[in-house]
Amino acid sequence: MSFGIDDLPVRDELRGKSPYGAPQLDVPVRLNTNENPYPLPEPLVERIAERVREAARRLNRYPDRDAVELRTRLAEYLTKTAGHPVGVENVWAANGSNEVIQQLLQTFGGPGRTAIGFEPSYSMHALIARGTGTGWISGPRHEDFTIDVPAAEKAIAEHRPDVVFVTTPNNPTGNAVPAEAVLALYEAAQAAKPSMVIVDEAYVEFSHGASLLPLLEGRPNLVVSRTMSKAFGAAGLRLGYLAAHPAVVDAVQLVRLPYHLSAVTQATALAALEHTDTLLGYVEQLKTERDRLVAGLRALGYEVTESDANFVQFGRFEDSHAVWRKILDRGVLVRDNGVPGWLRVTAGTPAENDAFLDAARDLKKEQEQSA
Amino acid sequence: MSFGIDDLPVRDELRGKSPYGAPQLDVPVRLNTNENPYPLPEPLVERIAERVREAARRLNRYPDRDAVELRTRLAEYLTKTAGHPVGVENVWAANGSNEVIQQLLQTFGGPGRTAIGFEPSYSMHALIARGTGTGWISGPRHEDFTIDVPAAEKAIAEHRPDVVFVTTPNNPTGNAVPAEAVLALYEAAQAAKPSMVIVDEAYVEFSHGASLLPLLEGRPNLVVSRTMSKAFGAAGLRLGYLAAHPAVVDAVQLVRLPYHLSAVTQATALAALEHTDTLLGYVEQLKTERDRLVAGLRALGYEVTESDANFVQFGRFEDSHAVWRKILDRGVLVRDNGVPGWLRVTAGTPAENDAFLDAARDLKKEQEQSA
Repeated sequence: MSFGIDDLPVRDELRGKSPYGAPQLDVPVRLNTNENPYPLPEPLVERIAERVREAARRLNRYPDRDAVELRTRLAEYLTKTAGHPVGVENVWAANGSNEVIQQLLQTFGGPGRTAIGFEPSYSMHALIARGTGTGWISGPRHEDFTIDVPAAEKAIAEHRPDVVFVTTPNNPTGNAVPAEAVLALYEAAQAAKPSMVIVDEAYVEFSHGASLLPLLEGRPNLVVSRTMSKAFGAAGLRLGYLAAHPAVVDAVQLVRLPYHLSAVTQATALAALEHTDTLLGYVEQLKTERDRLVAGLRALGYEVTESDANFVQFGRFEDSHAVWRKILDRGVLVRDNGVPGWLRVTAGTPAENDAFLDAARDLKKEQEQSA
Repeated sequence: MSFGIDDLPVRDELRGKSPYGAPQLDVPVRLNTNENPYPLPEPLVERIAERVREAARRLNRYPDRDAVELRTRLAEYLTKTAGHPVGVENVWAANGSNEVIQQLLQTFGGPGRTAIGFEPSYSMHALIARGTGTGWISGPRHEDFTIDVPAAEKAIAEHRPDVVFVTTPNNPTGNAVPAEAVLALYEAAQAAKPSMVIVDEAYVEFSHGASLLPLLEGRPNLVVSRTMSKAFGAAGLRLGYLAAHPAVVDAVQLVRLPYHLSAVTQATALAALEHTDTLLGYVEQLKTERDRLVAGLRALGYEVTESDANFVQFGRFEDSHAVWRKILDRGVLVRDNGVPGWLRVTAGTPAENDAFLDAARDLKKEQEQSA
């Protein structure tokens, strides 16, 4: 045996673990990581090159530590699209919403504290909890993947977590959480401790409903996290952000690494925000395609979870990994998220979705012939 | 009183704290954050724009999660400049060496574990320890700011830390740590626990001596951390990296946030690495200027700590903050690092260094007249 991880003095809870990440396979149709299938339009590509060229001329200097221009533009975007006034003092940005969440857990979670999430949900919440020494509590859901509010309230009262995660639309299931449910959980969390409630709205631009951003009014322990990875078609940029009371923005600055956001990241994000209208046009196309996937899968006889995201959870399968493999054999990579009986497919281009629906049709036929 | 940080359920150890960071003042000559004063050459700026344009065309996809091309080029750079063969499997990269250190502490430090540094040293080591729940032990130095090896060995044997930091050249004092001292501390750390030893070589390209990279041979618990902020003139890029045994590279992947390094950061760093020879030419100029600062300050009667970095620690002052202010009044911003009796000045362009030396001369005259 060669010298490996377990021969190093790593933390005990890391022994035997594997890094997070979907398999990166070279497949014609990749619908496994909820990426936006539309490349950025060429004028935006040119604008990025232009803004980065300007930034590169000052690259010997540290970037704007507080990313003021970027946070101002993000605040304007939120104000315009969520119908709730948000200022630069309400917004914070980091390298992906993962880093936003890591900073929030370093501030409000950490050793001796706990966080709760209602699973299945975005698995990075639990992993970042582990990485920050925050205890993790797995809260309940109904069998249809909606949050069981009375059971969740009970879990909050019992465990008194310091942080409560609500993902809406939820990943990997796709369903949105109603505002009343979030309000009930917020009240329960305040009664129990008080605790911070983090609403992860990574996919909210694809929702049939509205952002929960207006709930921030009068609720200083509420945080809404967002990303440019999905609606802005910029997964490669790694730009996440949050909106919250200004005190929350001040607090995360106690744990953020100084100059965490590079000048090229800030420049690229600013360029993308200049092209918001075009990018939100792609979102409308993807919503239509998402609805077509839902309808198409149901017409084929699959069970489908209601989706407000750019992906669709479908099932049910006795052996979902075997089905994942069969779809892969047809050149389409979907995600086996570990939700027993279900798989997840990202809404791609119309041609990609056709390829997926063809594979799904084949599988049904195969199943019927063998039955 | 308006609602503030302490009204939120933040961790107790964050209460009453302020964010890390030097004051960003608008002053003609800024010699306070050890930035490289030379902007990137225009051909490199164009190359960055070109590589980022290419990356932007695929920005809707997640970046290369393992940054393989970048790590390969960094390994080549280390092999070429440090005279020790390093492969892609030995190198890991993150958003600044701060994030590298954070990942190392999440892997090898954390709750219930401790880290030791020999202070004064780079203050982010202690702050990142706090941010990751790692206990911090402040180890001793001689009065001339060299490491007191017997006292350090004793501290390691007594406290049995999980992580030992050695910064060489040391920041903010400037002096390099001899290889024999690092070897002695490594042996002490292995005898006590075994522990990881992190050699922070952020400024090593400015050193009169060689990198300690060859010490990695046969020492799997040793890590050398580096940055592109200083020698590569790219503080705005936020690109730090480490070299170590492949098992260390595997281990930090258990805590790294997936896709932590954006496609634009990777593209920009790759462009800079194509221009290594030009950038290392600037380093030679800065070493000459650094030596001129040391000689000039000594000629004026100041005490100066030996410097192997792109900055110089000078003193001694009864009230170093008052002197900092007087230099600022002359349009030159230096750093008051909190080392009693001392200040730190970054080597700038020849004109910037002249402005600083003029201010230092004025101050001496003023002092002599009032004496």
